[in-house]
Amino acid sequence: MEPLWLEDFEVGGKFQTAEYEVTRENMIEFARNYDPQPFHLSESTAEGTFFKGLAASGWHTAAITMRLLVTSGLPIATGIIGASVDLTWPSPTRPGDVLRVELTVTEVKPSKSNPSRGFVTAVYDTLNQHGSIRQHTTAKLLVFARSDS
Amino acid sequence: MEPLWLEDFEVGGKFQTAEYEVTRENMIEFARNYDPQPFHLSESTAEGTFFKGLAASGWHTAAITMRLLVTSGLPIATGIIGASVDLTWPSPTRPGDVLRVELTVTEVKPSKSNPSRGFVTAVYDTLNQHGSIRQHTTAKLLVFARSDS
Repeated sequence: MEPLWLEDFEVGGKFQTAEYEVTRENMIEFARNYDPQPFHLSESTAEGTFFKGLAASGWHTAAITMRLLVTSGLPIATGIIGASVDLTWPSPTRPGDVLRVELTVTEVKPSKSNPSRGFVTAVYDTLNQHGSIRQHTTAKLLVFARSDS
Repeated sequence: MEPLWLEDFEVGGKFQTAEYEVTRENMIEFARNYDPQPFHLSESTAEGTFFKGLAASGWHTAAITMRLLVTSGLPIATGIIGASVDLTWPSPTRPGDVLRVELTVTEVKPSKSNPSRGFVTAVYDTLNQHGSIRQHTTAKLLVFARSDS
């Protein structure tokens, strides 16, 4: 894909990523390192919890979402640099989920003080193979203008 | 620490975590898995970028923040379950940063429809050893009432 600069974005523009399969082993490894709670660590410790079974850490879903955007979905020339992000997790990622991201640009705002850069706001869903939304994100990204390159 | 239930939270309540040292190796490993962009992968590829040197993925900072809260800062009886989260990264985490989290409760709201649960809103900063804010978070957490246990 061609690298994208600020001038290349328009409101309503859509992007979608490749897919990423989340394995039980991968979920548990992430949780051990960063979110060691019973519902993220094993089927047996997760059973009696709110999640009623093994669920990925929301931060793992967030990290996979970023990986999908970086490696396949959103080829911003100077990289994907988040200024602010709002997240919800309507349902937890489960073992065997095959995740993908669908993104829509909702605002493109060149900086008034510094015309070499601006902000692109994007709304995106991280979905599994059945269309269940595992994460809903609104992100304000710092994007540079082509004239700056 | 004693496990906390919804009744134990009050607006203005403060919590703080232990510390976590972020190594260059750890930063690069996370980035390879989840955010493989030049400014997160090596000093040399990071030099000429917006970050002017190696910076941790914001998602790595977010994951470490969760680890600190789960393992040392916020002993919620039924676990830390995020309903929604807003994040900003005022400055990037750098190699050698020793991170900690300082948290303040800003709202406690029992559910009207289901008195066995409620939402606790918390605002927290992830700081390094010099007091630089690496992440600012507002999180709405699902917390269960003691009466439900």
